[in-house]
Amino acid sequence: MSWTLAELAKHVDAEIRGDADCIIDGVATLSSASSSKISFLANSKYRKFLSHCQAGAVLVTEADAAAVEGNALVVKDPYVAYAKIASFLFPAKTVVAGVHPTAWLDPRSHVHDSAQIGAHVFIDADVTIAENVEIGPGCVIQQGVTIGAGSRLVANVTLCHGVSIGHRVILHPGVVIGADGFGIANDNGRWINVPQLGSVEIGDDVEIGANTTIDRGAIENTVIGHGVKLDNQIQVGHNCRIGNNTVIAGCVGIAGSTLIGADCAIGGGAGLGGHLSIADGVQLTGMTMVTKSITEAGVYSSGIPAEPTKQWHKNVVRYRQMESLHQRVRELEQLLNNQD
Amino acid sequence: MSWTLAELAKHVDAEIRGDADCIIDGVATLSSASSSKISFLANSKYRKFLSHCQAGAVLVTEADAAAVEGNALVVKDPYVAYAKIASFLFPAKTVVAGVHPTAWLDPRSHVHDSAQIGAHVFIDADVTIAENVEIGPGCVIQQGVTIGAGSRLVANVTLCHGVSIGHRVILHPGVVIGADGFGIANDNGRWINVPQLGSVEIGDDVEIGANTTIDRGAIENTVIGHGVKLDNQIQVGHNCRIGNNTVIAGCVGIAGSTLIGADCAIGGGAGLGGHLSIADGVQLTGMTMVTKSITEAGVYSSGIPAEPTKQWHKNVVRYRQMESLHQRVRELEQLLNNQD
Amino acid sequence: MSWTLAELAKHVDAEIRGDADCIIDGVATLSSASSSKISFLANSKYRKFLSHCQAGAVLVTEADAAAVEGNALVVKDPYVAYAKIASFLFPAKTVVAGVHPTAWLDPRSHVHDSAQIGAHVFIDADVTIAENVEIGPGCVIQQGVTIGAGSRLVANVTLCHGVSIGHRVILHPGVVIGADGFGIANDNGRWINVPQLGSVEIGDDVEIGANTTIDRGAIENTVIGHGVKLDNQIQVGHNCRIGNNTVIAGCVGIAGSTLIGADCAIGGGAGLGGHLSIADGVQLTGMTMVTKSITEAGVYSSGIPAEPTKQWHKNVVRYRQMESLHQRVRELEQLLNNQD
Repeated sequence: MSWTLAELAKHVDAEIRGDADCIIDGVATLSSASSSKISFLANSKYRKFLSHCQAGAVLVTEADAAAVEGNALVVKDPYVAYAKIASFLFPAKTVVAGVHPTAWLDPRSHVHDSAQIGAHVFIDADVTIAENVEIGPGCVIQQGVTIGAGSRLVANVTLCHGVSIGHRVILHPGVVIGADGFGIANDNGRWINVPQLGSVEIGDDVEIGANTTIDRGAIENTVIGHGVKLDNQIQVGHNCRIGNNTVIAGCVGIAGSTLIGADCAIGGGAGLGGHLSIADGVQLTGMTMVTKSITEAGVYSSGIPAEPTKQWHKNVVRYRQMESLHQRVRELEQLLNNQD
Repeated sequence: MSWTLAELAKHVDAEIRGDADCIIDGVATLSSASSSKISFLANSKYRKFLSHCQAGAVLVTEADAAAVEGNALVVKDPYVAYAKIASFLFPAKTVVAGVHPTAWLDPRSHVHDSAQIGAHVFIDADVTIAENVEIGPGCVIQQGVTIGAGSRLVANVTLCHGVSIGHRVILHPGVVIGADGFGIANDNGRWINVPQLGSVEIGDDVEIGANTTIDRGAIENTVIGHGVKLDNQIQVGHNCRIGNNTVIAGCVGIAGSTLIGADCAIGGGAGLGGHLSIADGVQLTGMTMVTKSITEAGVYSSGIPAEPTKQWHKNVVRYRQMESLHQRVRELEQLLNNQD
Repeated sequence: MSWTLAELAKHVDAEIRGDADCIIDGVATLSSASSSKISFLANSKYRKFLSHCQAGAVLVTEADAAAVEGNALVVKDPYVAYAKIASFLFPAKTVVAGVHPTAWLDPRSHVHDSAQIGAHVFIDADVTIAENVEIGPGCVIQQGVTIGAGSRLVANVTLCHGVSIGHRVILHPGVVIGADGFGIANDNGRWINVPQLGSVEIGDDVEIGANTTIDRGAIENTVIGHGVKLDNQIQVGHNCRIGNNTVIAGCVGIAGSTLIGADCAIGGGAGLGGHLSIADGVQLTGMTMVTKSITEAGVYSSGIPAEPTKQWHKNVVRYRQMESLHQRVRELEQLLNNQD
């Protein structure tokens, strides 16, 4: 399949600079594109590739349009336009209704006829699966789970009892939703379990990356808002609530009962303590350590970036001497004050 | 089902302040409880909710009892009392003996008649499963594994060959126990595998969270003591030993051959280097980086908490100037000494 | 089975000090070895165990040979020699050709007759599996995957569509390869998905630890070079490329589009930002935070190790006062300059 540049431009409301009849049959990066591919410039790091780019067309902003040697599609946001064109050129595969012969559906489950149920899937009693849902191979859906229309569990996903999944949700392989939260109480030196009686609610249009885990609430539910995007290997503790459209990169850990606002962006490897409250619109850079609530939107950071190990050793020594350095400066100040 | 406050008080040895005949049928948080629910105050952050609390009763310490407007159950440790009452009101579901028709048991395995074996489970030769064990859907139990009485594998758990699991152990979805440790040796620039010949021993009353991994020992076994509680997404390297009743929060990484004492508490996201020894009773706050052995009980920390990114940038610059700042202070001191 | 020391010495080209006829039937650590076991000294931390070691023989370097009281095998690298002897004494189990009755192979898949396909495995259309491959229980192999000869998927591994696996690759339980990368674009406040059209290529002789995830590329492929060794719970973002023979310890997170050179060694819990380039031969110590490209081989570090929490609190306060301390030192310098 292929399209003219004019057809693609219309699809993303772009202004064409160059040959509107150029034929496009795929996407490519700036550095590897051939003449039938469309590419894009969204990160200034890659601007250097514009000059030798062989692409049939490049999606750019007005500011970068002059630097494109071939055809350009000028748009407000090249990455958004690229996403739309790529989705148009390569639409997601459609759900094929049917139950694989090796799947097991409890007779008390309610699975819509349009759903696709993969190999070795287990669906327990009182589960409700809406239209056009795809449950990939190896998934385990425990008692009382509900899954909204158009959602997709890729493979080997585990949904524990009672969990509720919204519409058009994508769960990647290895995701575990609704495992017991880490609730323990110390009874005279022996740890006893605190029953985890809440569940998990996942909103609409949520995407959750491979091997991410979201624990069920202790009493009330853990809640993931609409449009939230979670990357791989994230841990969300019990009772957390994550506001709409917040995005979280890989390897983030969020301890229990922490509330994260809407429209936040949390960098990879960040860690958030428990029982905190993070305002709407907060951004955390990668590996940031959050030990207190953040009450105002803005960008927050912590951590000291890598340096050669020799210097690192010296700086750590100096770090541990800061108290005495302060003392020495104070003494110098007193000495000078006495001189005056 | 419902109980009088008097019945619940007896169950946790509490003193009743108020109406002993009050009917309780569930649990709730302080802020959302209705008049038939029992709640608790265990974290001072939530004391503000006492004044408008609508709960039928609140579990509190003597110190907080006066602040409760309705009925109170006065106990030494409200969280422990809550755990016991919640377990009493909502007992864990009982094991239903039987093997799911889609499960596969090797004829040379020994599975107790009282065990519950779920859908698509695979149990290999020489596996021994004791009474009242539940193996949830999708679990893989490889050759020679033993599982003690009353243990529960929720779903999609993998136990590699020869692993030994104690009594009353709970393994949440995605747990992997006994994968090969990270043993490699560099043979003239090429990495060769070091066979991982040990196994893993898990003690009694251990709980292991979703997607946590515990590697098998290189020669001897990796050992997890009795009563240890591990949260989600923890990595325990080969040859580690974790002492009885130690608790570890999510996303902690423990490199190989590290020994952790009994009764330790390790905060989320902490990292421990390899070949270290951590004394009994050590506590680490979240994201602490441990590069040396810790020989005395106590609380240890590292990491600098989040700050606005602008300040962070400035502080990182200053951090890297510490060496020259020391030099400047030394020069000032010498200058002043020469003046005297 | 047992061997003489002479036979083992020949296998690793070692010089025998002591009784060449000593019978060895297994391996053990220095501290626990009995007289029919062979042990090794590779980490100076364990030299103290040499003096009371009961082993039948110890693999050591020339420098340590004098300290061995019993028989010694003198080699250049005791750990490499140990790996070879252990592999010789305990060879990996051989693949048993055949398909488990509960496995499901799509008729359009191509599975070599010599392959071993475990219980509850699902193999989709257009999958190609070469000779002597072992696919363990519960694995999901999606459409178009290719797996090279001699590779082994231990259990519950998920390979998403189109992924390519080299020869002699080992994938431990819970590994997910080829899940969609974290590609989202913000379309006026709403996050839309960027189709992930690339795949993942895994080279030969790669080993990947339990629950590690490697995302498929956005346009081009994510590439893992030959001989790469990845520990457990590592996250590799889309478009990353990891050079030959690089080793990465557990819990490392690598953001998208980062290029890592050959022969690197990355310590546990390290975090690497996106769109970076790391030179060949770079080593990172544990928990290092990398925010910029590293252009030269060498050892790099960051992070401040644990200290007692009281001191930590003080040091964090001092850290935040560095700006004002610099100001005070500058004032002292000016004051003294004015005096002169």
